[in-house]
Amino acid sequence: MSDFINSGNGRLDSQLWFSAEIDKMTSILRRTVLIDKSRRENDAEHSWHIAVMAMLFSEYAPEPVDVGRVVQMCVVHDLVEIYAGDTFAYDTEGNADKEIREKLAADKLFSVLPKEQGKMIRELWEEFDARNTPDSKYASCMDSLQPFLHNTLTDGHTWIEGNVNRKQVEGRMAIIKEYLPRVYEWIDKNLDNAVEKGWLNVL
Amino acid sequence: MSDFINSGNGRLDSQLWFSAEIDKMTSILRRTVLIDKSRRENDAEHSWHIAVMAMLFSEYAPEPVDVGRVVQMCVVHDLVEIYAGDTFAYDTEGNADKEIREKLAADKLFSVLPKEQGKMIRELWEEFDARNTPDSKYASCMDSLQPFLHNTLTDGHTWIEGNVNRKQVEGRMAIIKEYLPRVYEWIDKNLDNAVEKGWLNVL
Repeated sequence: MSDFINSGNGRLDSQLWFSAEIDKMTSILRRTVLIDKSRRENDAEHSWHIAVMAMLFSEYAPEPVDVGRVVQMCVVHDLVEIYAGDTFAYDTEGNADKEIREKLAADKLFSVLPKEQGKMIRELWEEFDARNTPDSKYASCMDSLQPFLHNTLTDGHTWIEGNVNRKQVEGRMAIIKEYLPRVYEWIDKNLDNAVEKGWLNVL
Repeated sequence: MSDFINSGNGRLDSQLWFSAEIDKMTSILRRTVLIDKSRRENDAEHSWHIAVMAMLFSEYAPEPVDVGRVVQMCVVHDLVEIYAGDTFAYDTEGNADKEIREKLAADKLFSVLPKEQGKMIRELWEEFDARNTPDSKYASCMDSLQPFLHNTLTDGHTWIEGNVNRKQVEGRMAIIKEYLPRVYEWIDKNLDNAVEKGWLNVL
C-alpha cells in the first residue's frame, strides 16, 4: 500500500494512509444481520447507519445535543475495532478485557495521524465510551437503537442465536430509557412482543 | 416490516420506518472494490468512508468549511440511490437520465419523514449535487478522492474493468484540482503512474 502514499508531504501521507487503513472496518463483522437477513452487517455499515439516525431522533432528548458533533462521533466510535475486533454486547468474557484491547488499538491507530487530529478523534471515541455528556448519551442511544431495530425486524435473529434474555436487552437499552424515554416506550412494547414470540428468553 | 413500527406516534413511526428503509444502502453496490479487493463496496460503506475522511482534509481547502455539516452531507449524499441505483461515474448513458431518476427517488424517500426533516436532508443532498458552496465542494472532493484512493491501491481495478482513460479521471478529479490543490498534486503523480502501468488508457 505504502508505495502509492507518496505525496512527499508527511502530514498528507499520514492522512491518506489512515484513510486507506480504515477501509478495514468493512471486514469487521458484527453479530447483527442486515434487515434483509442476507448477511451480518459490518462496522462501516453500522457506523454509517447510526450516523444518519442521529440526524433524526434528537428531539426526544431532554437537553440540546450538537447533531453535527454526534454524527462525527458516530462515524468514528468503532474505529478501534479494526485492531481490537467487535465484542458482542452480551459476551461477558469478551467484555472483560475489551477496555484494554481497545486502548491498545487506539494507541496504534490514532498515533498514525497528525497529532492534533489523532487527539481529536480519540477524544470523540473516549467521550462516546464514557457516556457522560449529552452528545455521547445521545450517540449511545443510536448505537443501541439500531441493533434493536434490526433484531425486531429480523424475527429476533441475533437474540435467538445468542440465547439472550429480556433482562440483558433491557440493560443494553437502559440508556434509551434514561435519555429518550418516548422512544423507549416503543422498545418496551416490542420487548413484550419478542418474549411472547420466543425470540428472547423470559429471564 | 410495518407490523413492528407501531409506537402509536405517527411522527416517531415515520422516523423508525425511514431508519429501517435506509438499511437498503448496504445492497447498493458501487463499481469500486474494497482496498482488500475481496468484493465491491456498497453505498453505506462508501458514505461512511468519505464522512470520516471529511474530518481529516479540510485544512487543504481555500476557505473555512463546517466539518460537522459536511459529515452530515456525506452520510446522506447517496441515499436516493436506494431507489435510483448507483450510476458509474464514467457511464455516459446512465448519467443522461440520472437527474430525473434521482429526483423521483428523493420525492419517494424523503416524503416519508416528518416534513422539516425530509426537507433538511433533501436540501443537504441538493446542495451536495450543486457543488456551489464551500461545504458541498469539499464533500464532493471526498466523494472523488475516496474511489481514487481505492483504485490506486487496487492496481487500477475499476479503471481497467471500465476501460477508462486518463482524461475521464482528470474530469472527475477536477473538483479536487480546484478546491484541494495540494491533494491534487498527489493525484496527478499517481495518474502518471496509472498510465505508465497500463491501468488507464492514455486518451
